[in-house]
Amino acid sequence: MNRENKTIQNNSIGLVKTQAFTFESFKLESGERLGPVTLAFETYGALNKEKSNAVLIVHALSGDAHAAGLHENEKDPGWWDAFIGPGKAFDTDKYFVICSNILGGCKGSTGPSSVNPATGSPYALDFPLITINDIVNAQKRLIEHLGIEKLLSVVGGSMGGQQVLSWLVNYPNKIFSAIPIATTIKHSPQQIAFNEVGRQSIMADAHWKSGNYYGGPAPSKGLAVARMIGHITYMSDKSMAEKFGRSKKDAGEPFKFTADFEVEGYLRYRGDNFVKRFDANSYLYITKAMDNFDASGGKRLEEVLRGSKVKVLAISFKSDWLYPAYQSKEIVKACKLAGVETTYCEIDSTYGHDAFLLEVDEEAHLIRHFLKKVFYAYEVTGNYGE
Amino acid sequence: MNRENKTIQNNSIGLVKTQAFTFESFKLESGERLGPVTLAFETYGALNKEKSNAVLIVHALSGDAHAAGLHENEKDPGWWDAFIGPGKAFDTDKYFVICSNILGGCKGSTGPSSVNPATGSPYALDFPLITINDIVNAQKRLIEHLGIEKLLSVVGGSMGGQQVLSWLVNYPNKIFSAIPIATTIKHSPQQIAFNEVGRQSIMADAHWKSGNYYGGPAPSKGLAVARMIGHITYMSDKSMAEKFGRSKKDAGEPFKFTADFEVEGYLRYRGDNFVKRFDANSYLYITKAMDNFDASGGKRLEEVLRGSKVKVLAISFKSDWLYPAYQSKEIVKACKLAGVETTYCEIDSTYGHDAFLLEVDEEAHLIRHFLKKVFYAYEVTGNYGE
Repeated sequence: MNRENKTIQNNSIGLVKTQAFTFESFKLESGERLGPVTLAFETYGALNKEKSNAVLIVHALSGDAHAAGLHENEKDPGWWDAFIGPGKAFDTDKYFVICSNILGGCKGSTGPSSVNPATGSPYALDFPLITINDIVNAQKRLIEHLGIEKLLSVVGGSMGGQQVLSWLVNYPNKIFSAIPIATTIKHSPQQIAFNEVGRQSIMADAHWKSGNYYGGPAPSKGLAVARMIGHITYMSDKSMAEKFGRSKKDAGEPFKFTADFEVEGYLRYRGDNFVKRFDANSYLYITKAMDNFDASGGKRLEEVLRGSKVKVLAISFKSDWLYPAYQSKEIVKACKLAGVETTYCEIDSTYGHDAFLLEVDEEAHLIRHFLKKVFYAYEVTGNYGE
Repeated sequence: MNRENKTIQNNSIGLVKTQAFTFESFKLESGERLGPVTLAFETYGALNKEKSNAVLIVHALSGDAHAAGLHENEKDPGWWDAFIGPGKAFDTDKYFVICSNILGGCKGSTGPSSVNPATGSPYALDFPLITINDIVNAQKRLIEHLGIEKLLSVVGGSMGGQQVLSWLVNYPNKIFSAIPIATTIKHSPQQIAFNEVGRQSIMADAHWKSGNYYGGPAPSKGLAVARMIGHITYMSDKSMAEKFGRSKKDAGEPFKFTADFEVEGYLRYRGDNFVKRFDANSYLYITKAMDNFDASGGKRLEEVLRGSKVKVLAISFKSDWLYPAYQSKEIVKACKLAGVETTYCEIDSTYGHDAFLLEVDEEAHLIRHFLKKVFYAYEVTGNYGE
């Protein structure tokens, strides 16, 4: 709370609004066509004359387009506000920052809860299976719509990092640099397993009804359990010990399986809060896209990156056991083998996977200097487009 | 399968039967009285004349009394058969091995699915909250019933290890040695969190009905999800990668959220199998007992162990992230500080927490030699009782 208030007073970009961009339709990787497609997005700062200062920020599983600043009548700033604003790592006095909500989501972009034009009802499971590459292809439409030929950088952590890798592999001529954070070329079976249990929990909820719950009660209990599992994996053994220890809550209730420990209360609170703002079917589609993602499409990543001129900064966190550092090192190794200019840093943090949202000082420092360097190089080369 | 068949041919103890011991009632730690209480148990080998060769094996969360040998008309041997039998680590030619099902369970012992004599219906949530110490106090009645004054050893992994620590702290004069495996003095918030999510999943199931599901459909989907979460924590990132990789199953079904990856199919299979043999309310009571357990009751373990003559062998496994080695080292440190004779080994295994069931060679070797040593010391001292 303190941090957030401070952030708002110091260098907040102030009031912002989420915008929407709609295009008629496009072809998914599966071959299916989907349309119309709307993407929610926000922008901060101004595009320069050369259109060389655009940075795309892509979000993680439960994120949205509201990365920075304040919405009217709301107290909490966007999810990466500590990084975005005048003088911050993504310095809005220098850069034009775009944050796009993902295809398949439920925060203003087209997803399973959107109305299917063919039926006039929500898609539910008639929504086609989407991939991380589909999400990126939709983003590319938005970037083109904004008149940008080439992004100075694409940045994101976790599933955002998967999108960064998709840009890196599929659109090397559309980005000057890339910052994949706490991410992986492809999910390990353990990562798939945690997502699968979340999906099973949603589908086990009697209210799920094979996805056709719109207009009735949502599968909130199943989604809350999925979110609780997520939260355990986002923290570390150590950060949980530091935050909760074995502190007990005031029991109060006579119920035997009440939340006795602080950590139980925290998980229940986080689970219950999440269901107010997230759609269970979106959770299914997005986690499946993450699990199916393979950045290099079955080939070796170094092969598909060969010849790429994109500059890469990869970041991982020591206590992150969900996306362990060895996975970032695999990305770095492939980049190096492909001759791609790559910087890597493993930040010494106890926050676990959440560190990419919380390790403001060190992470912001790395990003600030990397962006300064690539912005300089980009302006020197003058290669603002194809 | 191969291992099991081999085990049966080589040194199986052959056909065994589960027995039952019932006592009138006893007082729980909470002050409540519970009775009558039945414990299911099995024994292998014979008690010697001096009654100095009795080893008690205590099981983990989902275990039962059937630790070794074969039940009539069943193919699979008991859950620790590789360790128990003629010539094995728990050599039934030398030792009298007892395995007791726990109070609160659902495998023949009194638990929430048992009939409440006050109502004639299953206890459900009228079953009192039990503790690990209650479980051990009930075991002690069984041991006394078998005419044993002092156990040569108490052995168990995971929640079994918690019971071993309870024996060590509360009944130092009733055991000559103790083998806590892959366990902890008290659960960390991360361990509590995983159990809590399992409980939430069960209680989220519409069939749970505040525990009153007996006679109707059981909360099988919720319990299956709880078990799937458990299975992820029992394996390691590496053992999952080795076992499943990113292999895909034959899809077959047209459903979008089918089990595409082998690891998904495995989890679903394990979850579905578990609900056929386990009671959801027992899962709630037992996990709560694990979470509430604090071996030294809020004091420092070295204080409560001071003066103890019990010999200890503690074992942990390198890739076990659910009960990490540092927790076993805390036990060992407290024992050493208390002047308790203690041996410790961290086995280099990739199996994760499951290693205590699977690392037959090294673990069995350690146990075999430790038991030989303490049996010799016990016979030399001749101190067969109080």
